[in-house]
Amino acid sequence: MTVPYELQKTIHLPQGFAFSAVTAGIKASGRPDLVLAEATSGANAAAVFTKNLVAAAPVEVGRAALSASGGRVRAVVVNSGNANCATGKPGLAACRRICREAGKLLGAPAEEIFPSSTGIIGVPLPAEKILVALPRLVQGRQASEEAARHFAHAILTTDTVPKFASTQIFSGKKTVHLLGIAKGSGMIHPQMATMLVYIFCDIAASPAELKKTLREAADRSFNSMSVDGDTSTNDTVLLLASGLSGVLLREVQAKFGKALLEVCQSLADQIICDGEGVQHVIRLSVEQARSREEAMQIARTVAHSLLVKTAWAGADPNWGRILAAVGRAGVRLDPYQVSIYIGEQLVCRNGVAARFDEKRAHSDLNQAACGIRIQLKRGRESAIFTTTDLTTEYVHINADYST
Amino acid sequence: MTVPYELQKTIHLPQGFAFSAVTAGIKASGRPDLVLAEATSGANAAAVFTKNLVAAAPVEVGRAALSASGGRVRAVVVNSGNANCATGKPGLAACRRICREAGKLLGAPAEEIFPSSTGIIGVPLPAEKILVALPRLVQGRQASEEAARHFAHAILTTDTVPKFASTQIFSGKKTVHLLGIAKGSGMIHPQMATMLVYIFCDIAASPAELKKTLREAADRSFNSMSVDGDTSTNDTVLLLASGLSGVLLREVQAKFGKALLEVCQSLADQIICDGEGVQHVIRLSVEQARSREEAMQIARTVAHSLLVKTAWAGADPNWGRILAAVGRAGVRLDPYQVSIYIGEQLVCRNGVAARFDEKRAHSDLNQAACGIRIQLKRGRESAIFTTTDLTTEYVHINADYST
Repeated sequence: MTVPYELQKTIHLPQGFAFSAVTAGIKASGRPDLVLAEATSGANAAAVFTKNLVAAAPVEVGRAALSASGGRVRAVVVNSGNANCATGKPGLAACRRICREAGKLLGAPAEEIFPSSTGIIGVPLPAEKILVALPRLVQGRQASEEAARHFAHAILTTDTVPKFASTQIFSGKKTVHLLGIAKGSGMIHPQMATMLVYIFCDIAASPAELKKTLREAADRSFNSMSVDGDTSTNDTVLLLASGLSGVLLREVQAKFGKALLEVCQSLADQIICDGEGVQHVIRLSVEQARSREEAMQIARTVAHSLLVKTAWAGADPNWGRILAAVGRAGVRLDPYQVSIYIGEQLVCRNGVAARFDEKRAHSDLNQAACGIRIQLKRGRESAIFTTTDLTTEYVHINADYST
Repeated sequence: MTVPYELQKTIHLPQGFAFSAVTAGIKASGRPDLVLAEATSGANAAAVFTKNLVAAAPVEVGRAALSASGGRVRAVVVNSGNANCATGKPGLAACRRICREAGKLLGAPAEEIFPSSTGIIGVPLPAEKILVALPRLVQGRQASEEAARHFAHAILTTDTVPKFASTQIFSGKKTVHLLGIAKGSGMIHPQMATMLVYIFCDIAASPAELKKTLREAADRSFNSMSVDGDTSTNDTVLLLASGLSGVLLREVQAKFGKALLEVCQSLADQIICDGEGVQHVIRLSVEQARSREEAMQIARTVAHSLLVKTAWAGADPNWGRILAAVGRAGVRLDPYQVSIYIGEQLVCRNGVAARFDEKRAHSDLNQAACGIRIQLKRGRESAIFTTTDLTTEYVHINADYST
């Protein structure tokens, strides 16, 4: 399914970044599988990582590097086709070696090289192939829209389309550019994994300022969506700021925060819509909660209920399953205060069936995207959570065992 | 799929119980849909209910009745075809009225009538149909194996087979009989719900003694299994003890506890194997945990992972998905201490791929039932959890929307 994204149409290239992509021979398909994004004069950076304790080698190395460099990043090196996860000490050593070599070629310390990997889990990383390809990779870098597009293509694994979101904000005569590039379609496909997001911008900000702004945006985008509820071992969102726009973050805090959130939400929507087997996207809105946390808890429980997700696959306005999921979410609420809307229609009032047009509800759920509102009558907080249906195609894709 | 159950072969009818089943016209199919089990001289009772806050009317009424009667039950009245859930005050009133009328016909107070309902959610209970059928129901009761079998058939909804488990224990020359009857196949099928379990026995015990024994057995059977992770609004397990064997529970505590657990586990297995779309049953064993609670938490997370469940559907020995689910279970463990076995084979040693025969692992997973062991190297506690794969058939059944 496709949904139009305004932020996808134009790339606003931030100043101070060059991109490159080559074929190192990790992917069996022979497609490009090794990329570089260089902050040509360096960048301040902030990252959020998977909360999964089973973290891949590049997640461990990248986290340590950011800490060692005090949040400075000179370049990002990403391979697709192998996640370098569950690969033990050899996996960590391979990742560190690649960072050292890339650093040498760029004239930067190893801790300013930020690594990522995505692909199969539990298979040793073919580090030699990557090391051999690094000089070509570094040589080919260009500060162009075309090079950024090649970067976006080469990090894909099971995605069907590359994912961009770009925008700009103004401060007097100066322009700040934001460019987000992502890959991911749920943690899906046999042994394939990972959502990777890189956001490049030319605002001037300290790593601490970037961290705070990124956390807020990530909470309301990447942390408020789910295809299948499985968190990857490699998930990474990295924000790089070159400072070359000459605009200080603190001068445009609100505007920049809003632009960053828009970029993150657009990328999150693109990931959801590219979720494997997804036929219907559901925008869940849990309202009138005592806290955002309890609203999120209910949203997540509903979004992960197999019975609810399969009902959505059939565009079935079965509110009883939604109510039952609310009831087991672990929030001590009164079910007789819960009301549910499908699209614009009230289908359950105070825990009991409301009169509604079933055909219209079915038709609303049959659109590419449909909103479902759950009102708790407990308070004023709310949460929005984007999720998908669960289709036979999802099961086919993920049950497909190739001997 | 079918699995043989020793406890299913013979019915050991406990003394002091009579059964009856009639067609009240609630099910569209015209099959029997209203049943009675009478403790002819009364029984002491204990129950465990759904933890879902959205509890059906009979769950609220039954819980209150047990409390009002001090744990005495004269009869159980169950209808199938309508869950009497999300039906508001009229649903509660209908349920109470049925208990009053059944009580009058049996010469017992209303609070000694224990009600259950299973079927569609959110549709008013056709109470008149039930009230009209009650005299026939009461009149037809019989203390026979055949009547017990009719009872087991008439409480089914989407189940494909009735579920029995029966055994006996001895104390000197006296015999204690246990007969468990259940319905359920996950909380499955459009708007259909519920696991209902009734265990009849003739041991002599106080309601408090029964409660303790039942809780222990339920924790290691019904609370250690899952088809789809959705808890029903009507789930009920009721244990009735007539006392007519003349054997005191405290004389045979260990023996009785073991027999009750066997009955519960057999019924739980039968429910799992009748889960809709189930092709493979998986017996998850989480070992070397610090506490049973953390072992259960990990078992539940693995059992509910869509990626893991779909891999099982394809008999795919993809241990990376299992390890990733362990890593997000919320237990602060060291992934480099985790080992995983599929069948008898070690497939992941200390968080890293072990050498194993993939074809054999695939073949093991392709059996009707397969064991998977997860070892944490943190302590001595463990948990066993029974679950299933997630197949396209499950999605078909649950996404099937009939306009």
